[in-house]
Amino acid sequence: MRNLKITIEYDGTNYCGWQIQKNGNSIQSEISNALNTLTGQNVTINGAGRTDAKVHALGQTANFYINCSIPTEKFSAALNSKLPKDIVVTKTVEVPKNFHARFSAIGKQYEYKIYNHSCRSAIKHNYVWHFPSNLDIDRMKDALQSVVGTHDFSQFMASGSDVKDTVRTITRAEIRRNAEEKEISVIFEGDGFLYKMVRMLVAAIIKIGVYKSSKEELEARLFSQQYCQNKWTAPPEGLFLNKVYYDKKDMHC
Amino acid sequence: MRNLKITIEYDGTNYCGWQIQKNGNSIQSEISNALNTLTGQNVTINGAGRTDAKVHALGQTANFYINCSIPTEKFSAALNSKLPKDIVVTKTVEVPKNFHARFSAIGKQYEYKIYNHSCRSAIKHNYVWHFPSNLDIDRMKDALQSVVGTHDFSQFMASGSDVKDTVRTITRAEIRRNAEEKEISVIFEGDGFLYKMVRMLVAAIIKIGVYKSSKEELEARLFSQQYCQNKWTAPPEGLFLNKVYYDKKDMHC
Repeated sequence: MRNLKITIEYDGTNYCGWQIQKNGNSIQSEISNALNTLTGQNVTINGAGRTDAKVHALGQTANFYINCSIPTEKFSAALNSKLPKDIVVTKTVEVPKNFHARFSAIGKQYEYKIYNHSCRSAIKHNYVWHFPSNLDIDRMKDALQSVVGTHDFSQFMASGSDVKDTVRTITRAEIRRNAEEKEISVIFEGDGFLYKMVRMLVAAIIKIGVYKSSKEELEARLFSQQYCQNKWTAPPEGLFLNKVYYDKKDMHC
Repeated sequence: MRNLKITIEYDGTNYCGWQIQKNGNSIQSEISNALNTLTGQNVTINGAGRTDAKVHALGQTANFYINCSIPTEKFSAALNSKLPKDIVVTKTVEVPKNFHARFSAIGKQYEYKIYNHSCRSAIKHNYVWHFPSNLDIDRMKDALQSVVGTHDFSQFMASGSDVKDTVRTITRAEIRRNAEEKEISVIFEGDGFLYKMVRMLVAAIIKIGVYKSSKEELEARLFSQQYCQNKWTAPPEGLFLNKVYYDKKDMHC
């Protein structure tokens, strides 16, 4: 029985999210079905992050235990032949028996893409948040630095989560403009993220960029956990789970 | 009665192409319906290029005659409010009465995107041709220069067209690799393009890139109109109509 870790890229547009649900097609169920078609086995797939409906991934990870004759180095190609076009396994490695994609993870990188132009984009509409108003990027960059560090992010968590410990450490929070100037990326790296935390942080930063809020208001919400009634959340289609980080020592058999 | 020229961006994935067809949803019919909802009028829309099913556009153009009170500078936003998310009018200008988007055009720019990586892309699969084999880009660049100039492109035209004059002038043919190295763009500019000509040229160039054909074979097909039985055609999803060019004197009222 091998423990295999897969890295997955997906277009979340047509899915109800990562996790298997009664109604709606999930990424997890597509992978589960593909594994079943390929090997005849029903395996439990542990995903690192439970991305929401319409959220994308370039580097989601998952692990599962499997007993089959397909060599590890040929596993991605074999599985991809059974997966739909909007899901692809980019890497498969064998990991130690106690590796768990979610519990072994030590960090994640998320990217949120904003299309900042008066006119929406027909080509990118499933992969960006169209925000037409002028944004003061320097003001956003400055405020974003308050987010870096270890904080109680309880005011940046949506209801529907049973998480008790709401303290997380953000190690990197950065804004990048692409060459065309129309697209802005907000990148977060941290040891973990609460339910809808990235999308709430992006919405708070955008509010500062259009002078409807200030760095001080963000800090009050962050440092004093000042209750925020209006938990504005950026839409899911701009969000990408880019990478999941692990300690090298947990990865090698 | 104003003659309005619109510039249109669209994601062709879910359409049967530009032109109105009995079965299937077209870009032209979506714009026609939106104009009807907006103004109550049934107008004939002249498109510059008849893009095929799944082909995209960043700068398609069209014109139509309309009698309505919406100022030209507010026309794009008004029309966009009635259009689906995968079609957007990026510009509207008033043009002289005798301007015709197709017949007044003096040139077009097409871009063909190839995703050259062993693993397909889940995010970009509707916007690139996934070609996994190694490509000799220098060999392709060299061959591509034979295409530039005035030639009879009859051997690069698919059946189903009633065009008689198959001589066209290509003024630019260029290959670009993007920063990530995985994506290759082939860009063509010329005074006009025959039915499926760009996709046939791309397929011929790709064949040269994998050493299954040579510059000499391309030239034989091009210069001596040597009949080509195997008219290999690149798939539609990689193709973008980037720009349509007009003479400035034809544009101003």
